[in-house]
Amino acid sequence: MDKKKVLVLGGGFGGVFAAKELARRGRDAVDAELINNNNYFVFQPLLPEVAAATIHSSDAVVPLRLLLRRTQIRQADVMGIDFAKKTVTVVQGFRRLPVDLPYDELVIALGMSVDLNRFPGLPEHALTMKNLADAHRLRTHIISCLEMADVTRQPEDKRELLTFVVVGAGFSGVETVAEVNELIHRALKYYPNIKQEEIRVLLVEYASRILPTFPVDLAEYATKRMQIHGIEVLTGVGTKAATGTAVELTDGTLIPTRTIVATIGNGPDPLVAALGLDMQWGRIKTDRFMRVPDHDGVWALGDAALIPLVEQPADDPSHFAPQTAQFAVREGRQLASNLLAKVTGRTELKPFAYTSRGSLASLGMSKAVAEVYGVKLSGTLAWLLWRGFYLSFLPGFATKLRVLVNWVLNVFVPPNIVLIQSTPPGTRYIHYRKGDKVLEPGMLIDGFYTVVKGSLKLTIDNQETGEHFDRVFGPGDHFGERVLVKSALRTGLVVALEDSVVLWISQKDFTRLARAFPFLDSYFKDYIERTFGGVEKSFAPGNVEKKPELETTP
Amino acid sequence: MDKKKVLVLGGGFGGVFAAKELARRGRDAVDAELINNNNYFVFQPLLPEVAAATIHSSDAVVPLRLLLRRTQIRQADVMGIDFAKKTVTVVQGFRRLPVDLPYDELVIALGMSVDLNRFPGLPEHALTMKNLADAHRLRTHIISCLEMADVTRQPEDKRELLTFVVVGAGFSGVETVAEVNELIHRALKYYPNIKQEEIRVLLVEYASRILPTFPVDLAEYATKRMQIHGIEVLTGVGTKAATGTAVELTDGTLIPTRTIVATIGNGPDPLVAALGLDMQWGRIKTDRFMRVPDHDGVWALGDAALIPLVEQPADDPSHFAPQTAQFAVREGRQLASNLLAKVTGRTELKPFAYTSRGSLASLGMSKAVAEVYGVKLSGTLAWLLWRGFYLSFLPGFATKLRVLVNWVLNVFVPPNIVLIQSTPPGTRYIHYRKGDKVLEPGMLIDGFYTVVKGSLKLTIDNQETGEHFDRVFGPGDHFGERVLVKSALRTGLVVALEDSVVLWISQKDFTRLARAFPFLDSYFKDYIERTFGGVEKSFAPGNVEKKPELETTP
Repeated sequence: MDKKKVLVLGGGFGGVFAAKELARRGRDAVDAELINNNNYFVFQPLLPEVAAATIHSSDAVVPLRLLLRRTQIRQADVMGIDFAKKTVTVVQGFRRLPVDLPYDELVIALGMSVDLNRFPGLPEHALTMKNLADAHRLRTHIISCLEMADVTRQPEDKRELLTFVVVGAGFSGVETVAEVNELIHRALKYYPNIKQEEIRVLLVEYASRILPTFPVDLAEYATKRMQIHGIEVLTGVGTKAATGTAVELTDGTLIPTRTIVATIGNGPDPLVAALGLDMQWGRIKTDRFMRVPDHDGVWALGDAALIPLVEQPADDPSHFAPQTAQFAVREGRQLASNLLAKVTGRTELKPFAYTSRGSLASLGMSKAVAEVYGVKLSGTLAWLLWRGFYLSFLPGFATKLRVLVNWVLNVFVPPNIVLIQSTPPGTRYIHYRKGDKVLEPGMLIDGFYTVVKGSLKLTIDNQETGEHFDRVFGPGDHFGERVLVKSALRTGLVVALEDSVVLWISQKDFTRLARAFPFLDSYFKDYIERTFGGVEKSFAPGNVEKKPELETTP
Repeated sequence: MDKKKVLVLGGGFGGVFAAKELARRGRDAVDAELINNNNYFVFQPLLPEVAAATIHSSDAVVPLRLLLRRTQIRQADVMGIDFAKKTVTVVQGFRRLPVDLPYDELVIALGMSVDLNRFPGLPEHALTMKNLADAHRLRTHIISCLEMADVTRQPEDKRELLTFVVVGAGFSGVETVAEVNELIHRALKYYPNIKQEEIRVLLVEYASRILPTFPVDLAEYATKRMQIHGIEVLTGVGTKAATGTAVELTDGTLIPTRTIVATIGNGPDPLVAALGLDMQWGRIKTDRFMRVPDHDGVWALGDAALIPLVEQPADDPSHFAPQTAQFAVREGRQLASNLLAKVTGRTELKPFAYTSRGSLASLGMSKAVAEVYGVKLSGTLAWLLWRGFYLSFLPGFATKLRVLVNWVLNVFVPPNIVLIQSTPPGTRYIHYRKGDKVLEPGMLIDGFYTVVKGSLKLTIDNQETGEHFDRVFGPGDHFGERVLVKSALRTGLVVALEDSVVLWISQKDFTRLARAFPFLDSYFKDYIERTFGGVEKSFAPGNVEKKPELETTP
């Protein structure tokens, strides 16, 4: 018999366990390949601990090639699926050459994405907790807030820098807020100018209580533990909007902060949304065997799929498999066996059925809450359970041992406050509230600003000559273009006249583009001449102080 | 007595040991603050092992705040020094507000930078090995080459992806090439489609032999060991130029590769170069006490300084302290005691004097070569020496133990091939040689290209209609602007007609800028209409295939 080609899209719990089972039981019948945009599997429940630097990032992920030694792994971006031709188009490599991969059977295990678009400013200003890069970003961000708070001379900045807000109190939100709080308090002794009472860590949840899938008493235990450790738990209040310096809640409260972590807003993966499949609640509808109706050879599982647990499901989420790792693992195994049953004809397909064994949430400081087979646990024992499960999952004895030893040793060593700066983005959208100061006199301009929405006012007052200059910028107007002419200019005051959105492009990228593109360069030369020509001598802030100005771009 | 304010600029060996000694012996006399752009100290000799993932990055760096518990640490960028006013201007924080810090005594320990400008294309296309981010970048790059080589269908691409060139065979170059080679060979078993003999690892050195500061027989031992492990060692040949797909040597050889690591080209730090101090060989001239002549209260040490070892130094490098960690450590201690002698008047200043105890280079696979007090060592014992020195340097018993245990355990676990993708840059300069293909039919355009130098030719042939379109682009001309209109368009053929440089801006950043900036948006709408209007239907490659095209930007 010719082997059937199986493509598994996605390397989360569902995809990995499906591929593992196919390799274990179906190597004579199928030839499976797993395609993922990263070359590693992330043990999601440990991400908050990576963010808090209590474990090494390499101890929370496993390279897919190690996990699935007998499966072909392809690190690539999936661009599209042609169900008629039975091909998947992927793009891989430096050369961005699209490749069409044929399949006989296709397993969609692409999970869900974050969609924060309902909350103005949140997509641009919130950090998320979906993958390893997110965890690194959060850790870097927290450490840099501490570094800056330690040396700033502005009390307002210090308050914003030392307020940390986590939005959403499901598993991920609770674990994240607990770990973030632990990191900050352990690191504090290295920051002599920050006092314990200057720190605010908040958890914001729209529902009336945290951990909605848990029994009430365990959720209450978790709330109390968090409060003991200084976390403010706000329930019954949601997020309305965000800027770079504040988050606004649904009750009108404005919390000045530079750190918003959003663990809310699940939406379908953009590829899944574009497939034209029958969807509900952002998930692909399947039958009880995890087949996608009317699409021959197409299967779906995990968070991306809506798998009925009963014969005639109603419009009730409890009639479908919940989006948890525990379910995804069982779905993966069952899907693999159904797929093999179909291909070989040796056995019958079975409907997916599984009952949760319980659930668990880590609370930091080696504590957790758990409900296992109806038994409620809290504290260190519950915490050990999760860790034990993860260890059993790691491939190879040496790796298990290394991770275990690290976990033990990490308890005794100081927190890792090494701040590895990443490349700053070339462009960024920034939201401002009415009255927010965009630039203040004396600040260095670090890029070029274009107004996307709203209006802002520039004011320059020259103390020495008494001269005054002001100007209102609306959509399409721009400021900061003088960085083209002179590096790191000092600015006037720019204030948002209403709620506004600005596109920022870094000085480096903007200068390169303008210089390479003569059309743009001459436009700006004329514009600067026209706009600032008359006042250049008195207002050009770079002339006011004779400090050596350095090119800040490498 | 009023305490004197001491600012130490730079957190390498020199700065750290100066600050440590000031805190240890001079806390009654001085108030020291160390300013560094990173909040951690890097143990440089371990960077190649971080790049090779044989150790965790957190095991090769120490947060400055842990290392210098009694010194004020400021993570900030130094913008300028006003020697007359005795202030240092730093920029810190999200708000880019420059702050002037006054000093009584200033210690310049800013090290050296990499300057590759003598080699066209090398600054843009070579990776460097100066800091932790460089090490991460190299590791990520190597793993992604392996991932792509494992799945590519283009033999030419595979050859480029599997050729790794390290330029410069000093300590850093030798250690880097050895570690890179080890990583690749250990990782190979997880890449079923890559054969051992497809891998090429080269070390290129302009001098007639490697490790110029070592005795000849140790250098020969090192060369042999590297050759046994499959590394090609090319001496007496330098680098001339580089592109994204090749490096050209001084003898005319062209090596197709996607990986060039440059460990050559030291130049002064841009700030140091702008200070107007008396410099030689890119270093600040000091007297034998490490004072900067004619600048009251200014000291310099480490790689940034040229410290005479004799009373009347000639134009001979051996009359000055060499740029090694060993010397920087002693310079730091001596400088601190001279500074305290000056401030307190209790003791005399002493000229710097030190004789090297020897030198050591790691060769990977737990091997090294060393010369210590004239005794030559090679192999594992030499390797243990370096590790032992580093351990003794780490603060706290728990940290030492954790690092030691990790080193031991890492020997037994599979190499960490987790590929953490970093944010791609917004813009990039790309060098091409005459005849290089910039884009090929069927490739996806991922950005906007502007010609900076040279000329390139676009050719589009429509197989179905027989229509033909071509165009030559010169400096200031651009292509790829159609990504504004349609995401991920397929391209025609673009070939470099001569050696050329192109500025690339990512689709995401370019689209955002053009949309926000109406002037640019209308220019491109007109331009696309004018240029492609007539041929859009037949040539618009996006129309040729009816694949679902997804927005690739998040």
